[in-house]
Order: sequence, then C-alpha cells, then structure tokens
Amino acid sequence: MSGVLDESWTWKSWVEAANVAGCGFPLQNLPFCAFRMSDQQPHLGVGIGDRILDLHAASRIGLLKRLPKEVRFACRATYLNDLMECGDAGVARLRRALMAMLAEGADETQKEAVHRSLRAMEGTVFCKPVAIGDYTDFYASIHHATNVGRLFRPDQPLMPNYKWVPIGYHGRASSIVVSGTPVVRPQGQRKLPSAEAPEFGPSRQLDYELELGAYVGEGNALGYPIAIDDAERRIFGYSLVNDWSARDVQAWEYQPLGPFLGKNFATTVSPWVVTSEALAPFRVEMAARAEGDPRPLEYLAATDVQHAGISVQVEVWLSSEAMRAKGMEAVRLCAANARDLYWSFAQMVAHHTSNGCNLETGDLLASGTISGPGDGSRGCLLEMTRRGAEPVRLPTGEVRSFLEDGDEVTLRAFCEREGLPRIGFGECQGRIVPARLPTG
Amino acid sequence: MSGVLDESWTWKSWVEAANVAGCGFPLQNLPFCAFRMSDQQPHLGVGIGDRILDLHAASRIGLLKRLPKEVRFACRATYLNDLMECGDAGVARLRRALMAMLAEGADETQKEAVHRSLRAMEGTVFCKPVAIGDYTDFYASIHHATNVGRLFRPDQPLMPNYKWVPIGYHGRASSIVVSGTPVVRPQGQRKLPSAEAPEFGPSRQLDYELELGAYVGEGNALGYPIAIDDAERRIFGYSLVNDWSARDVQAWEYQPLGPFLGKNFATTVSPWVVTSEALAPFRVEMAARAEGDPRPLEYLAATDVQHAGISVQVEVWLSSEAMRAKGMEAVRLCAANARDLYWSFAQMVAHHTSNGCNLETGDLLASGTISGPGDGSRGCLLEMTRRGAEPVRLPTGEVRSFLEDGDEVTLRAFCEREGLPRIGFGECQGRIVPARLPTG
Repeated sequence: MSGVLDESWTWKSWVEAANVAGCGFPLQNLPFCAFRMSDQQPHLGVGIGDRILDLHAASRIGLLKRLPKEVRFACRATYLNDLMECGDAGVARLRRALMAMLAEGADETQKEAVHRSLRAMEGTVFCKPVAIGDYTDFYASIHHATNVGRLFRPDQPLMPNYKWVPIGYHGRASSIVVSGTPVVRPQGQRKLPSAEAPEFGPSRQLDYELELGAYVGEGNALGYPIAIDDAERRIFGYSLVNDWSARDVQAWEYQPLGPFLGKNFATTVSPWVVTSEALAPFRVEMAARAEGDPRPLEYLAATDVQHAGISVQVEVWLSSEAMRAKGMEAVRLCAANARDLYWSFAQMVAHHTSNGCNLETGDLLASGTISGPGDGSRGCLLEMTRRGAEPVRLPTGEVRSFLEDGDEVTLRAFCEREGLPRIGFGECQGRIVPARLPTG
Repeated sequence: MSGVLDESWTWKSWVEAANVAGCGFPLQNLPFCAFRMSDQQPHLGVGIGDRILDLHAASRIGLLKRLPKEVRFACRATYLNDLMECGDAGVARLRRALMAMLAEGADETQKEAVHRSLRAMEGTVFCKPVAIGDYTDFYASIHHATNVGRLFRPDQPLMPNYKWVPIGYHGRASSIVVSGTPVVRPQGQRKLPSAEAPEFGPSRQLDYELELGAYVGEGNALGYPIAIDDAERRIFGYSLVNDWSARDVQAWEYQPLGPFLGKNFATTVSPWVVTSEALAPFRVEMAARAEGDPRPLEYLAATDVQHAGISVQVEVWLSSEAMRAKGMEAVRLCAANARDLYWSFAQMVAHHTSNGCNLETGDLLASGTISGPGDGSRGCLLEMTRRGAEPVRLPTGEVRSFLEDGDEVTLRAFCEREGLPRIGFGECQGRIVPARLPTG
C-alpha cells in the first residue's frame, strides 16, 4: 500500500503485446479469470498482453512445481475461491512465479512449456471467475447519492446519515453473471404517478450502474469484526460491476425495505479480477471528503489515509442496434474516477463486519454507482438524464432516457500513472434482450 | 394441496413416543434435519417421536436400496440440498419408504436394522440443515407492517404499495446459524434523536422476529419466472426463522437502501425442515385480505385460493438469566398464526421470480415477522412494547423493552386439526451473549 515501487515495475514481457503502450495487461497486472475451451470444465487463467496463461495447464505440466501444494491445486479449480483462500503470501508467490516465467530474459527451456500454456484472448468464452456466496452493494459515491437524492428530495438531497454510515444493502448473488451474458429486460410492477393502480409489464426505465467490486480473500468468523487497518489486506482483488436497475420497478417497491426486484434480475461482473498488488502504485488519498465533514468514527478511521483510495478511471460506453448496423463505434457516456468515492473499500469491509457479520472468501462488495463531481461523470442514466427529463442523443440521432432493447453497455476501467504501464480491468459488457412472458 | 387425507394419516409408529398426543413428531411429519455425532461429518436424519432416524446409516446398511440411486446418495450428504434436487417425486418416495419402515406392522426383520439407525433426539447437536445460497426476507404480515408503520407514521401506517407488492429484501446468507448458536450482541452506529452525532457501541435495542421460512426445492433458470400456480410445488419445506434485529442500528442506517447491519449479524433457523407434504392437511384460505382490498395482479393470483395459506401456530417464548437461576420456565410472549399473513409463500415465489430472478435449490424465503390482529400476537418486541414505551414484565419482576444479555428466545410452531396428530416444527432457540470489542 505504500506506493513504493519495486524493480519489477520496470520489467517487460516476452509476450510482446503486453509491452504495447495502453495494452492494460502488462506483466505487472496479470489479472485472474476463468475461461472455457470447447466443452471442458472452466480453467483459471491470467491475462498477459493478448494472451491468457492457462493456470490449469501450467499446473499440470509442472510449471508451478516449486509452489506450495495448495497453490498448485488451487490453480486447477474452476473458480478462484481456493486460490483466494491461500492468502496474500500464497497469491504473491504465484504472481512472482508467473512474472518470472513471462518476463523478458525468462529461462529459455521453461519458456517453451509456458508458450504451450498460452491461449489467445480473442474469442475466449469467459466464465464467472468467483463463486460468490454473498453480494453486498454499497452507496459509496457522494456525488451519486447527491445527484439521485436531488431528483427525489430537492431540499435535502443527502440523507443525514450519509457522512457517518457507509450505506449498503444486500444484493442477489444467484443472478450475478459474467460479462457478455445477455440481460433480459425484466418485467415488474410499476405505477405511474397519475395511475390509480400499478400494472405489471416490461420495465420502461432500464438503467446500468457503473461500479467497482472488491472480492473478499480472507474472511472473518461470525462475531469477530475486521479492524479498519486490517481491512485492505482482506481484499483479494477488484473487478468492474454493472448493477442493472429497473428504475420504475425500484421506485414503486423500495419503501420501506430498499431495492429488491428492481435490481436482482441481473448483475454483470467483468471476467478479470485485478489483484490488490497490481493496484498498489495507484493508491491515493480519497478526494470527496470535504473540509468540515465529520471525522469518521474510530472503527472507520484508517491510519494511512494517504493511500485509502484507488485512482481508477471508470467509463461507460453505449452502442445501440442502429449504431452497430451502421458500423458506428460505441459512444462514451461517462468517465469518472474511483478516488471520488466518499468511502474506501477498507471502510466498507470494516463497516460490514463491525456488527460481527462474517465475510467469506469470494464474497463481493461493490461500490455502488461511481459518479464524479462533473456533468460527464454521472455513472447511470437516472442521474445523467435527470430521470429521463434530459435524454441523451446518440450519433444516429436516437435519444435515450433509459435503455432500449438491443442496447449494449460496456464498462471499462484502467489505472494510469506517469512512467508506469497502464493497468486495465478489461470490459464488463451486456446487451439488453426483449422481455419474456412468464411460463404458463 | 387438496386437503384430502390419504389413509396414512391414521397410521401409528412402533416408535411409541411418536404416538403420544401433542408430540409433534408423529409418523406423518418425519421432518428432515442434519446432526453431528462426536467428530463425524454431519448426517442427515428425520425426526420420529423422541428419536432421529439416521439417513446416512440407513442408506449405508441398505435400508433404502429400493430407492433411486440419486435419493440414496443424497441421504449420505451433509446438507439436504442434494435431496431437495431429487424433486417432489423422489422425496415423496423416500418419505413413503421411511413411513413404511417406521409404521406399526412394519416388516420385523427390517425393523431391527431400522432400530440400529435410530438415535436419541435429546442431547443431539444439530447442524444447519441446508446450504443456503441466497436468503430473502419478506414483509408478508400486514398486521406487523401496520403495527410497525404506526410507530413511525401514525397518519399512514401502511405504505401505498403494501397491498400490491409482496415487499421483501435480500438478507445475509453467511450469518444464518442453527438453533442453539449463541447470538453475540452486535455493535453498531446509533444516534439518539437528541444527539448531534451518532456513536458506536453495543446495540441497546436488540429484538427477535418470529418468522416462518420456506426452502426452495426446484429452482428456475435466470430469466424464466415461476408461474403462481407452479410456485407451491417449488417449496421443499418449512422451518422457523428468527431474524434478530438491532432496532437502534436499523433506525439510523436504513434510509434509503433498507436494513443492513441492523439485521445481518445473525439469523437463526430451526434444525427441522417440515415438508410441504406433511403440511397438506393444514392448508387454509388466508385470513388477512379484507373486503375491498385490490385483487392481486394476474401474476400473483392463484387459482386455488382455498389452500393458499397454512394454519401454523407460531409462538415466542422468553427466559431471562434470573428466571433460569430461579428455576422458572420460559414465558410465552406471543402466539400468532401464519394464516394471518397477507401474502402466501407461493405469491412470494412468483413475485421473487417475476422479473426473471433465479431461485436456487436451498434458497431460503422467510415471511418476515408474523403478527396477528390481537395484542397477544405481536411477533417482535418493537411492536409488543411500542418501541420500548410499554415494557413487558417478566415473572421475576424484571422488565424488558428490548433483549438483555442472557435472555434466551425460543420460537415454536405446530399445526393442529381435529382428529389428526399434531405436526411440530421443533424449536428455534438463541441466547444473547455480551458484545465483543473489535479485534486490534
């Protein structure tokens, strides 16, 4: 977390695409994923340039033989969970070994075996990388909370608890899908303000939410909170998360117990899990806490505030069916930065466990929609279009208040810092398909 | 679901305790559980009288050899999930076979082998019977919703959506524990109305919630809703659920995303899962829907409204440390009936999946606090004491606004009908232990 760079940050890979500026998957990233070739069980892998190193194959052919048995075996699992349970030290050893074999100047005899374990990234079918037991979604962006609050309560956009409590709620784990999975437009109850009764039908206010998620590595036993300064190391790594939302359903159902069917029809995660280690040089002080804001309560007050945040640029890109038919590229709707969150991931972990609640390996904690202070940095359409009042115009002339069938939403993220290779998160993508009627 | 009784409802068991009036575990119940003997893996079992039939042992010694292989193997698992995946027909066959071997007049040679598979129920260490992927808590009691609403919004106790939407939210699966597990008093943020800032410390308003839970047997694929008339058969069975709540934490945190740390420190389930089959004679029309209430929307409108509810008496019993020291029995704080819920479990299933959300085998759907129309039927202390304004007096002279350390809460439930043996749910019990400080 210190931001001090060891020498390995200057290394290059013999996988040449990894060294191309802006690639996002240099030797220093090596994000984890799970993927499927033909009808095999999913294999775990790490991204390097335009390739995936197949960890299952690497383990089978003895490339990992110097690593502890539990790490070698974990590399043959179908989810990352076993590896996450190996702890910081085990994962760091695996990463060192992989870096050594993929770096320029690697042992030539080994290189051939490594080469045989490389797969082309293009065309890969990715799987959900982690078996997620519980999924919690926070509300950590004060800009998002304020923008949304303003739509509903112009006089008091921010709730009185916001600057004290990292607000969160439990999401649905079963409907988390990996990038590329189509999202069926949900049906649900919604009530027009003018209508006497609600009606049931396809949502007319389908939205995306631009989020980062943290996967828990080492959890805690029920009844034993995780202290704030111990929290960051409990996070195995980070991914992109799109918490799709049906705003009309949400608006009608959410009182008094919060979002439910407006959210749980689908949540998309990116295939790649970027390790905390790869993000170390991009730790920064968080930017949203203002002069005069209350000091966090003791259990939320980290010693090292200088590195509590992560500077990750997060973006939303959209293409409509008509755009794709005309060969147009997707347009960027939003660019924000995770350093603008009000609450850090360590604070989320400490808060979540402060009552004794147990986090388990593989649990997902997401940030909630990330918005920045400016107009181009609103992380969902609800905010961006002011609940539909100011629709977005697409290059085709189409307008969008909310998502239409055929729209494809792609989230992207990366870290950049002068003199360092870019650390990319890959993409988190989903296309809206029309609603289905209930089965009879 | 028809309420027509087959002849087996007149049978008796050669396990004599099963035939005692009011026992709750007659031949017709055979609820499932998981239990542990010494340091073995948990075994699955069924309750009969004062005994548990060890399904693992029964399977091993060939007692189940006429059953399909997947059912036999499922009986050797450590959770009920595999059995739940065998479907209605598989479970019904297992129950027939068990009934036949436990009934009076059972084959004498087999009886000895069965006898060897029986364990004493007393002193048994129970385990969580089901691996619960996702846990959803509803708010299905209109009496509870009205009583609680009245405390906060005297003018409009019931939200406008209540009679249209089966309100629910996602709970925390990881912190679900089995009956008998101590409950550590949670710490958390709470703010007195008169205070300028919140403070962090042990909850001063710890409460229980009296609930029934339904375990999902056959789930649905993402994007494919379960139709209302297909919903009941997706429920494998029912249990008692105590959704412990820290009301002070909840009050401060719940806007705008609902309950979170006020709930997720612990949820207790009973060890026993009573099958839908055993409850068939107790199906009734639900009682809470009033003349003039809106007709449920089509996707929530069951064809057979006569049997949409279950007549289950549910109760809360409390003993304090001082009561136990004086040898006093627990006192009953509440007796309510699940037929007084506004929404049926089938409606919860249909609603939950109406947007395409996928339920998975083993998921738990709980009713929310069950309260009846009368004063003696309030299912939590918040309601019963009017948020502490009218404390309850215990036989020792102690008073309770909320739970104190050492208090032991026991939920009980049973079904009764003239001429039939009582079907019991066993107990769902937890004792409050003092808060722990965060680890350093």
